[in-house]
Amino acid sequence: ALQNILIDLHPADIAQIISHVKKDERIYLFSILPPKVASSVLAELDPPLMEELTEELGVEKISAIVDEMDSDDAADFVSSLPDEIVPEILERIPEEDSDEIKQLLHYDEDTAGGIMALEYVALPMDATVEQAIQEIRRLKAEQEVTDVYYIYVIDDENHLVGVVALSDLVLAEDYTTLKEIMKTDLPKITPDMDQEEVANIFRKYDLVSMPVVDQENHLIGRITIDDIVDVLEEEGSEDMAFIAGAPDEEITEGSISKLARARLPWLMVAFLGELLAAFILNQFDVTLRHKLMIAFFIPVIMAMGGSTAQQASVIVIRGLATGDLSLRDTGPRLLKELKISFLNSLFFATVLFIIVYLWDSAFFAGILSVSIFVVINNAAIIGALVPLTFKRLNIDPALAAAPFISTTNDILGILIYLTITTVVINFGM
Amino acid sequence: ALQNILIDLHPADIAQIISHVKKDERIYLFSILPPKVASSVLAELDPPLMEELTEELGVEKISAIVDEMDSDDAADFVSSLPDEIVPEILERIPEEDSDEIKQLLHYDEDTAGGIMALEYVALPMDATVEQAIQEIRRLKAEQEVTDVYYIYVIDDENHLVGVVALSDLVLAEDYTTLKEIMKTDLPKITPDMDQEEVANIFRKYDLVSMPVVDQENHLIGRITIDDIVDVLEEEGSEDMAFIAGAPDEEITEGSISKLARARLPWLMVAFLGELLAAFILNQFDVTLRHKLMIAFFIPVIMAMGGSTAQQASVIVIRGLATGDLSLRDTGPRLLKELKISFLNSLFFATVLFIIVYLWDSAFFAGILSVSIFVVINNAAIIGALVPLTFKRLNIDPALAAAPFISTTNDILGILIYLTITTVVINFGM
Ligand SMILES: [Mg+2]
Ligand SMILES: [Mg+2]
Ligand SMILES: [Mg+2]
Ligand SMILES: [Mg+2]
Ligand SMILES: [Mg+2]
Ligand SMILES: [Mg+2]
Ligand SMILES: [Mg+2]
Ligand SMILES: [Mg+2]
Ligand SMILES: [Mg+2]
Ligand SMILES: [Mg+2]
Ligand SMILES: [Mg+2]
Ligand SMILES: [Mg+2]
Ligand SMILES: [Mg+2]
Repeated sequence: ALQNILIDLHPADIAQIISHVKKDERIYLFSILPPKVASSVLAELDPPLMEELTEELGVEKISAIVDEMDSDDAADFVSSLPDEIVPEILERIPEEDSDEIKQLLHYDEDTAGGIMALEYVALPMDATVEQAIQEIRRLKAEQEVTDVYYIYVIDDENHLVGVVALSDLVLAEDYTTLKEIMKTDLPKITPDMDQEEVANIFRKYDLVSMPVVDQENHLIGRITIDDIVDVLEEEGSEDMAFIAGAPDEEITEGSISKLARARLPWLMVAFLGELLAAFILNQFDVTLRHKLMIAFFIPVIMAMGGSTAQQASVIVIRGLATGDLSLRDTGPRLLKELKISFLNSLFFATVLFIIVYLWDSAFFAGILSVSIFVVINNAAIIGALVPLTFKRLNIDPALAAAPFISTTNDILGILIYLTITTVVINFGM
Repeated sequence: ALQNILIDLHPADIAQIISHVKKDERIYLFSILPPKVASSVLAELDPPLMEELTEELGVEKISAIVDEMDSDDAADFVSSLPDEIVPEILERIPEEDSDEIKQLLHYDEDTAGGIMALEYVALPMDATVEQAIQEIRRLKAEQEVTDVYYIYVIDDENHLVGVVALSDLVLAEDYTTLKEIMKTDLPKITPDMDQEEVANIFRKYDLVSMPVVDQENHLIGRITIDDIVDVLEEEGSEDMAFIAGAPDEEITEGSISKLARARLPWLMVAFLGELLAAFILNQFDVTLRHKLMIAFFIPVIMAMGGSTAQQASVIVIRGLATGDLSLRDTGPRLLKELKISFLNSLFFATVLFIIVYLWDSAFFAGILSVSIFVVINNAAIIGALVPLTFKRLNIDPALAAAPFISTTNDILGILIYLTITTVVINFGM
């Protein structure tokens, strides 16, 4: 009875229910699903839950589930299994399917190859509309392919020559050949392309599915929009987590010590950087003893540098991710950030001068307003330059933000501030 | 000649070229595009460029362009025009189209109504597959609708009763009625739903298009996946910009003073907050004079509190945005963050104790390690609690991060640290 209620639900809903119940209920609910449904549900679960469930299943059941999955989901799932059991699993499913999975496992998971599936409809140029419809019918009946939006047109050697939209197919006469109605000007997607770049192409051209071709233009796979939507979500979460200095944790990850350990490296960078700041402050002991008020403004200097750098860096990181900004724009972008920070630093230098003048003296007000001016502009350059440099070095620019930029800026801010102060006091006395 | 080269390109590519040339070239290139192409190109441009171009066009040309747009893009475009010219524009296009635009202008741009279009294929239940194909053919020939993936099935009173996938239509016999092949269990999307929530439904159920219905289940519009992909990008950029304390600026925005002014409020919050910190430090004058070294560790305290709060807050903000986290999870989430921060605060309290013990004394080491323990755990609670509270108050949780959380934590961190220090020194002496 429970089984009947469950299997009438959408797999995404079953996955949601399963995510929200206790572990033993989860294992029970999952065990009563037929393999076809279980495979769809599993593909929707977060990795920690996926692992938890598969630990409880035998090789037999896992094989039955893998057998029902689309090739892309099967490859993702198999690559998440412990290495020891993979050969056993692959042996138990039909050779055709296991060959497909092995083929997909070669691609990096963050590339076009990592998100493409091997289920698609491909036909020769001289096939007619009627033949195409027969072929779709056959593949659908065999449950070989779902979500058909385009038919791929190939030549004798499996080179991709065009695509036919399903809506054009519907409207054409039965005896029309695919050659007559196919579109040929497609952006080219190769399996080694970064998944984020692929997603940007889908977004730019409003696509719902795309063929993937190798260097010689042989058709080798298909990417569908549902997986692109997941990529956009995944890459967005990853960048946001990096900017926050947190790992890209799954909200559902249960182990506290795992989560704590994953967040530790970023905190460690901040900790060590600020300890260095403490030692630097110690070097300026004489200056600080001369006038304790200097210390009161350390938070102002740190926060203004930090905020400016974060504004500049996040705009650059997001621009690089969406493709709105490219490395070619490095010079103009730096100039732009500098112009923006120049205006804002003038503003804060003025306001700070007035406040400190009223509080203390024109002399100290002058020191602080010059310091904040230098610190803000310096922070803007670092904030924009570091992610662009990371990108050039092929490191994820989002990694630049939290540990490097904010800690570097705190240290530099304190150094700039106390150096200016010390120099002015020494000369001014 | 140039015109011929341009119009062979995809509108998205023309938009890209137009975005990267100088202003007068941009105006020239745009002016030579036929209205049909111009309308597609305009829909792809960033708002600042869109405004720049339309300033140069006459009412005549603008009307011709609006006339060619899909209703959703037309409504977006018209709402970006100066209020004075809108009535003039709407008068010049066919009444049917201007009525549609007026209808869509009622919806908030961030809602389902704001992203839906009025172009779709709807047929009664007893229509046959053949009639459906004829209807698609007619609408396509009149350029009334593109990107058909589903046919919506309605009753006599325009209530939505089901949908038929185009691929199922292709495979059915000509005389089959839509009633026989339609799917009826659809998630319901109403025009007042937040666009981000709509996007999460598309993502969860792997959808490519969805009908929008009013409270009485009347079919009123259609949302397509290309616009959902834009929503995901837009909402992601917005959240990231808020987290950075920057406005959601367009990379292409040209005016430096506009950008600087847009970033100023966030910097202002930080500035005022840290000035408050300076005044607080002034109150602890006696404590700091007693032992200057106390001041050296202010950056450590500030940075550890700030980093912890940012980790907790960004994870919560992102979880709320993707729907992985809901208000129901408030209690468990707070507990989880507190457990994580407890482990990490113990670690840093220990390390800091050892370092300060070696540097100075067990006495001061004790003070610092207790302080950092309290500051880190306090920061974790604030970091997780503030975005959840914002969400409960219907304020965008992403707004919580930059100004509130980081500045509040700096102030609280300093207060906690210096209060503990003062109390211990006073009692310890
Ligand atoms: Mg990536
Ligand atoms: Mg994969
Ligand atoms: Mg688009
Ligand atoms: Mg897939
Ligand atoms: Mg999927
Ligand atoms: Mg990325
Ligand atoms: Mg919008
Ligand atoms: Mg929103
Ligand atoms: Mg709109
Ligand atoms: Mg999905
Ligand atoms: Mg649209
Ligand atoms: Mg569009
Ligand atoms: Mg949002």
